[in-house]
Amino acid sequence: MLIARVVGSAVSTIKEPELHGLKLLVVREATPTDELVGTPFVAVDGVGAGEGELVLVATGSAARQTARTRDGAVDALIMAILDSLEVEGATTFRKS
Amino acid sequence: MLIARVVGSAVSTIKEPELHGLKLLVVREATPTDELVGTPFVAVDGVGAGEGELVLVATGSAARQTARTRDGAVDALIMAILDSLEVEGATTFRKS
Amino acid sequence: MLIARVVGSAVSTIKEPELHGLKLLVVREATPTDELVGTPFVAVDGVGAGEGELVLVATGSAARQTARTRDGAVDALIMAILDSLEVEGATTFRKS
Amino acid sequence: MLIARVVGSAVSTIKEPELHGLKLLVVREATPTDELVGTPFVAVDGVGAGEGELVLVATGSAARQTARTRDGAVDALIMAILDSLEVEGATTFRKS
Amino acid sequence: MLIARVVGSAVSTIKEPELHGLKLLVVREATPTDELVGTPFVAVDGVGAGEGELVLVATGSAARQTARTRDGAVDALIMAILDSLEVEGATTFRKS
Repeated sequence: MLIARVVGSAVSTIKEPELHGLKLLVVREATPTDELVGTPFVAVDGVGAGEGELVLVATGSAARQTARTRDGAVDALIMAILDSLEVEGATTFRKS
Repeated sequence: MLIARVVGSAVSTIKEPELHGLKLLVVREATPTDELVGTPFVAVDGVGAGEGELVLVATGSAARQTARTRDGAVDALIMAILDSLEVEGATTFRKS
Repeated sequence: MLIARVVGSAVSTIKEPELHGLKLLVVREATPTDELVGTPFVAVDGVGAGEGELVLVATGSAARQTARTRDGAVDALIMAILDSLEVEGATTFRKS
Repeated sequence: MLIARVVGSAVSTIKEPELHGLKLLVVREATPTDELVGTPFVAVDGVGAGEGELVLVATGSAARQTARTRDGAVDALIMAILDSLEVEGATTFRKS
Repeated sequence: MLIARVVGSAVSTIKEPELHGLKLLVVREATPTDELVGTPFVAVDGVGAGEGELVLVATGSAARQTARTRDGAVDALIMAILDSLEVEGATTFRKS
């Protein structure tokens, strides 16, 4: 899973029925020290994540393996809100 | 899903039967502030998107999970036309 | 699907039985204005494409969703020969 | 599979039920001479790997093909702890 | 499929049972003129490839579509040993 930060949200009226009722958040990949990298993309929220939180995003077909998303048209799913990250013996992130 | 802008369309006569009847649009990944990035590619249109619109594109096997595309040979599908994007508290895009 | 140009072909005697009888072409991703980008790779030909033609290549599991390739060990399939591409109101490519 | 080094671990309380009970390690892709490259990401541990070990990580749907992960929402799985790597006739890595 | 050169091999004792009995080779993507590019990775050998040979590697779920690998936890499989490559009318590679 990618480490990512929730940076915003997306609104769409005209969409495939498979997206109805799903919360669409804008996320951006982050390093364990919370530098943002790469181009932001849109993930479905599975865990009630809020803007600013550091999360884990499953991509590809794994994003369709939860009760909520099984057989849905989902290619990126927020699977977890991170409490903390430890890298090389140091705590690089702790949720405030 | 990728945030992308519809920049054009593709026409092909000689193609796999699985592509018959599908509208093929040229899209290019975009940032939430609508800068275009990366190499344009071709996505199947699922929602009646038009040139210039900002859309969400599902890639990989997720693109085959809608009523229209199930079991089709589709690896990129326009899933939604974006109304607006909010990033870090600001509206970075609003459909005109 | 990637826009790609057919730049050559590959010959192999020792291969998995699943590749027998499939035509293996060397392709390279192209922009709509036909600049070649990235590293060439090998795709199975589904439509009788010839060297120099601009084509659409499906990658990933979508490449296994045609009558020819269903359940085959194919990760890249030439799905269509392009007649033309229109980008931002201009014809950037027309098959000669 | 990617060659990767285990560099840390991730802790999450709020997560999809499908992640409960899985050990989440932070890994980073490595060259055979153990230079770290790219952005760290989180993989599920299938083999009891510890921080500092060089491992093989399966990505995509392959990560869901083991007894432990079948049908789980896993997109990256540590499949093996490396004992050694030989490249161009030289041993570039040996587990200490 | 990627064009790749076999540059070495990997040895692992502690691994998922799904990897037992599979030969793990270190490969690196190559151009048709045999320049090596990108980071080396590990592929399962399906055809008896040896170090130094130029091969085709299927990635993703296609790697699990052969008799040997069906339903295995394989994300990269050497599918073919290349005899020759022709690019733009010239033979850029011929097996010696």
